[in-house]
Amino acid sequence: MTRPSGRSADQLREVKITRNYTCHAEGSVLVEFGQTKVICTVSVEEGVPRFLRGKNQGWLTAEYGMLPRATGQRTRREASSGKQGGRTLEIQRLIGRSLRAALDLCKLGDYTLTVDCDVIQADGGTRTAAITGAMVAVVDALNVMRERGWLDKKAELPVQQMIAAVSVGVYQGEAVLDLDYPEDSGAETDLNVVMTDAGGFIEVQGTAEGAPFTSEQLTSMLALAEGGLKELFALQQAALSAVN
Amino acid sequence: MTRPSGRSADQLREVKITRNYTCHAEGSVLVEFGQTKVICTVSVEEGVPRFLRGKNQGWLTAEYGMLPRATGQRTRREASSGKQGGRTLEIQRLIGRSLRAALDLCKLGDYTLTVDCDVIQADGGTRTAAITGAMVAVVDALNVMRERGWLDKKAELPVQQMIAAVSVGVYQGEAVLDLDYPEDSGAETDLNVVMTDAGGFIEVQGTAEGAPFTSEQLTSMLALAEGGLKELFALQQAALSAVN
Amino acid sequence: MTRPSGRSADQLREVKITRNYTCHAEGSVLVEFGQTKVICTVSVEEGVPRFLRGKNQGWLTAEYGMLPRATGQRTRREASSGKQGGRTLEIQRLIGRSLRAALDLCKLGDYTLTVDCDVIQADGGTRTAAITGAMVAVVDALNVMRERGWLDKKAELPVQQMIAAVSVGVYQGEAVLDLDYPEDSGAETDLNVVMTDAGGFIEVQGTAEGAPFTSEQLTSMLALAEGGLKELFALQQAALSAVN
Amino acid sequence: MTRPSGRSADQLREVKITRNYTCHAEGSVLVEFGQTKVICTVSVEEGVPRFLRGKNQGWLTAEYGMLPRATGQRTRREASSGKQGGRTLEIQRLIGRSLRAALDLCKLGDYTLTVDCDVIQADGGTRTAAITGAMVAVVDALNVMRERGWLDKKAELPVQQMIAAVSVGVYQGEAVLDLDYPEDSGAETDLNVVMTDAGGFIEVQGTAEGAPFTSEQLTSMLALAEGGLKELFALQQAALSAVN
Amino acid sequence: MTRPSGRSADQLREVKITRNYTCHAEGSVLVEFGQTKVICTVSVEEGVPRFLRGKNQGWLTAEYGMLPRATGQRTRREASSGKQGGRTLEIQRLIGRSLRAALDLCKLGDYTLTVDCDVIQADGGTRTAAITGAMVAVVDALNVMRERGWLDKKAELPVQQMIAAVSVGVYQGEAVLDLDYPEDSGAETDLNVVMTDAGGFIEVQGTAEGAPFTSEQLTSMLALAEGGLKELFALQQAALSAVN
Amino acid sequence: MTRPSGRSADQLREVKITRNYTCHAEGSVLVEFGQTKVICTVSVEEGVPRFLRGKNQGWLTAEYGMLPRATGQRTRREASSGKQGGRTLEIQRLIGRSLRAALDLCKLGDYTLTVDCDVIQADGGTRTAAITGAMVAVVDALNVMRERGWLDKKAELPVQQMIAAVSVGVYQGEAVLDLDYPEDSGAETDLNVVMTDAGGFIEVQGTAEGAPFTSEQLTSMLALAEGGLKELFALQQAALSAVN
Repeated sequence: MTRPSGRSADQLREVKITRNYTCHAEGSVLVEFGQTKVICTVSVEEGVPRFLRGKNQGWLTAEYGMLPRATGQRTRREASSGKQGGRTLEIQRLIGRSLRAALDLCKLGDYTLTVDCDVIQADGGTRTAAITGAMVAVVDALNVMRERGWLDKKAELPVQQMIAAVSVGVYQGEAVLDLDYPEDSGAETDLNVVMTDAGGFIEVQGTAEGAPFTSEQLTSMLALAEGGLKELFALQQAALSAVN
Repeated sequence: MTRPSGRSADQLREVKITRNYTCHAEGSVLVEFGQTKVICTVSVEEGVPRFLRGKNQGWLTAEYGMLPRATGQRTRREASSGKQGGRTLEIQRLIGRSLRAALDLCKLGDYTLTVDCDVIQADGGTRTAAITGAMVAVVDALNVMRERGWLDKKAELPVQQMIAAVSVGVYQGEAVLDLDYPEDSGAETDLNVVMTDAGGFIEVQGTAEGAPFTSEQLTSMLALAEGGLKELFALQQAALSAVN
Repeated sequence: MTRPSGRSADQLREVKITRNYTCHAEGSVLVEFGQTKVICTVSVEEGVPRFLRGKNQGWLTAEYGMLPRATGQRTRREASSGKQGGRTLEIQRLIGRSLRAALDLCKLGDYTLTVDCDVIQADGGTRTAAITGAMVAVVDALNVMRERGWLDKKAELPVQQMIAAVSVGVYQGEAVLDLDYPEDSGAETDLNVVMTDAGGFIEVQGTAEGAPFTSEQLTSMLALAEGGLKELFALQQAALSAVN
Repeated sequence: MTRPSGRSADQLREVKITRNYTCHAEGSVLVEFGQTKVICTVSVEEGVPRFLRGKNQGWLTAEYGMLPRATGQRTRREASSGKQGGRTLEIQRLIGRSLRAALDLCKLGDYTLTVDCDVIQADGGTRTAAITGAMVAVVDALNVMRERGWLDKKAELPVQQMIAAVSVGVYQGEAVLDLDYPEDSGAETDLNVVMTDAGGFIEVQGTAEGAPFTSEQLTSMLALAEGGLKELFALQQAALSAVN
Repeated sequence: MTRPSGRSADQLREVKITRNYTCHAEGSVLVEFGQTKVICTVSVEEGVPRFLRGKNQGWLTAEYGMLPRATGQRTRREASSGKQGGRTLEIQRLIGRSLRAALDLCKLGDYTLTVDCDVIQADGGTRTAAITGAMVAVVDALNVMRERGWLDKKAELPVQQMIAAVSVGVYQGEAVLDLDYPEDSGAETDLNVVMTDAGGFIEVQGTAEGAPFTSEQLTSMLALAEGGLKELFALQQAALSAVN
Repeated sequence: MTRPSGRSADQLREVKITRNYTCHAEGSVLVEFGQTKVICTVSVEEGVPRFLRGKNQGWLTAEYGMLPRATGQRTRREASSGKQGGRTLEIQRLIGRSLRAALDLCKLGDYTLTVDCDVIQADGGTRTAAITGAMVAVVDALNVMRERGWLDKKAELPVQQMIAAVSVGVYQGEAVLDLDYPEDSGAETDLNVVMTDAGGFIEVQGTAEGAPFTSEQLTSMLALAEGGLKELFALQQAALSAVN
């Protein structure tokens, strides 16, 4: 089998993580998985949602959007249609859950981090790129909070573990890593995997688009994902180590 | 470990599937997984959504709702708040995708099946109960279509495979089957599995609520799910075999 | 004249009132007027709406809904269309007004009772069935409140009077009681009557669907309604007397 | 008993019906019941709603609104809050049903009449004033249609009967006609009556605001309404006879 | 060139300002610019919007609407379509900004003035008529506030300057004042001007509907506007001087 | 006076126009006015809105949005709040009108161009940057249309004139060009000017934020704008001349 992208089955697209992409947000990252480009900003505000008041913890919430012409065909602007679609809500719930798993919310104080992931160009894997990039923006925002004294200046950042995400799929019967849009459209199965840098699973979401998938295929896909995520964790660290 | 429900780790709750529960719909099932009770109706209408016109196939779509006091605390009526929440949209997308995987839409003709899953009492696992019960209601509706001549009276029903769903989780470090609400609230991991009666996976959606889960735990959970689903497929067949 | 239902002009359909139909709500009744089936739950929450704060009284509010396929043709789910229709709002306002007339709100304390009436199968008279059944669920909820000490354990329930409702109409020139859907569709006049068990009127809502109706017809209809409501008050009492 | 308004129990407020109040609509009336002032316009458009296509009849629909400061306290603009409230929907459904009863829709041709009733000043009885005034505007619009040849120039107008509406109530134990706002606020019972000029009832909507009302009170109220409506029918005719 | 209206290029339509047009509002004006008729009410409420709390100033906000048949063709009721259109929002933002410029908000105390401008008949220039009439209603409302002691009884009204508005345009190559609807539809350029009685500009909003306009045309239009506004300021003063 | 930005009164910020910024749209430009950055895409679709059908012309419409954290404080995502605010609607109406003035819609054929202007970083002047950049993206899209044969391959592009926009204001009593956010916040007057490359005005929108502005100030501001726009037209041409 040859992938449409010409990549080998276990090969990520070229991944770039650009920090401080815009100037206002406490954390701001442009993440690129090949032609997929997502701006991830993190905004820090005092206070927590009503259901957490008095519980002595912070919060993180996420929103996701796509520019109308991020895609091959223009999609209707959600602000104009008056509601976010089911796909959007599903993705932003996933991003929020995943990033909360990275943090120790009890050490975050009375703050809410709002993560905005806006896709400016889509070519498959927007949600996994968003999670991977937003993790870096969250670390940047936490550093800003510490500098400003919103977090204890001497304590470690309230990060329990780094998380990252990647998609895998079954394409023409074979497990492949990090599907771009043509591959995703033709895939029989699509699986999104969120892991921690310590190797645990945070989310596993697999869908048979065509034929059902087998235990063996699931195992192969998870192995591919694990390999790809190791690379992504290294790329996150490299980005964070770079002089800002 | 003892489960709050007192069940063994691989034990389903008592499951009941009552066909023809209401009188108007082409298919109508009350499905009970213990205290979780969901009315699943299937409505058949001529025509297909705009994006399928002229493509020579039918369609199935699903909607999900909960009565406001199906839960321990009253939740706001979505009709009154003016929109369906993210959880609702996520669940109804899952139900629709899963049931479409059961059918051969190309043999359905110019018809749309609308599946309504309305939870009248919730105790965990509403989405898996809904999928399992709705599958039976879909078969009933297809039989009505054949009787009315909307499907070829001599052909087989356009069912590629039966599907069913069950939840599994990690509770106090151990994999357990079919979590009720107290177990679900305390679970470290929650995994919903949709399979075909031939043993393939349609959907696998796992979320670490607390600690990340391991490959081994995933494997244990999937094995438990597979066992539970065999029982559910048998219960579906028993219900369908009963004199109506 | 023979009614489509074969009933005599002053004959109710078979009425059943099942208490404790679901397990979470403070009051939960399934009421059946023949094939019309409505789940009525009562939820008790502390606090009152803003416009009553500091006025030293409680409140009762009602919401009404129909499952999409409660009817012969599927109707669009109001949660999905984004608003409740005029008919829904009109009915839930009627239910709320009627039930508030039954209570002494000044003795209810700082509590709000939310009554949810959800039609799971419709065959005419859903609003009158809902009111009649919800009255029983309200009494059950008040008893729960007294048991929990939210109401004075030694005082009487804050019920001024029982209320119930029934529809009457003019069918082929003759007044008939408790119309089912085929009768309602063919009726020239439709009148909904809410009364107290002491014989007073709470609501009288009559509409000429075809020809205008006369004073004499109105008098006949009200007499029929009064007779039917006596039976309904007896059925409410029987349900409430039954061992729970 | 003395009414707050100083009127006798069977006395209407001063009623004025001004035709051609605005210049664009096919029918346009300002109706005043004392301080209550409502602009009623009728717009004629070709075509009928989807559910009537091919049924060879016309249609009439009504909408109701209040300017935000038509009332003593400003009420929120419904256009701004994003939806029409339950009271608004209930009233506009009543206006539409009542006016449709006046017409022979089968003789209306393929046209829809849209009646807009906008309250510019409110002092009780806005819905009954609206119905009474809109009836005149409908006749004006039908005359315009006949002049333009949209209706047969030689045929009679498709009016089966004139209709009008008035409110009655029980105030301090006594039945009184045409309540203004202070009387309405203090009334024990509020009854809106829509009749035809031939003496038949189209709508009877009575609500006990405080104590339940009795058969005798209902009879007294209906008699008062009948008297008031005779006057209103005469006023409608006088307005229609006046040189335009 | 002859204007469709037959007026000279610098001639206003007949302008009428009727104070106390409705009875409930603190200020209530019917303003007529020829056939354009707008009801302007001012409602005074205690408190200010959240973003001004603690800033020791008052506020003024405006809303604009049109009755559905204020226009030649019926337009959809915004309350029914569920949102205010872009034109409506643009106009009400303009009205609010303009009137705020007239007041010294720091001397208004903890009050919000809500200005409602509702067009009952439209013939071009509704926004400029609304601003001109609402200015008078604001003065009336401030006088009421002073009488009630909400403003210092001995201080001057917190009016920095009177404002008024008029439209000008280029019609068949020539600048003309106060366009009615047929002129507006045929104009090449449309310019709305809001000025103070001291001769300063508050708003200048010009749009080329057809060909671009030149500096010279802009200068001519502004001169015409200035002349017209002088007349409008005189008419405002005359209205305010009249015995109420 | 020294401007906060240190620029001279007639000095633009550094302006960059990057074509083909994203890969899917027929035209895609990143426009930067200093720190203000806007992505402008143009999507071409067959067909025109209903009100233009059969009128033998094309159409152009525009939408505007801001990423939530494009600004110093995060603003609520409009897709999530369920509607576009008044400012957004006002700006996108301005963009659409301005760009339509650039085109000869009668030569566009049965096509609609949808222009999406999404602000990824805001520092004042987002609407003028959007118009200036979108003009270039429109030309690119028209070229694509001609290449694809949707426009006559031998005819000129249906561009009547280039348009561009810039803001001017009065800052500390002096007219200044192209205000950034700190200047805009402190300005007494804010004027947005849209012109054609032939020197005509398309839109002039001036607002006194503080004191009213005078004729002289208006004249100075327009002169500054005219100078700035000449530079912007040159920059548009330079961008369009560059090898793609």
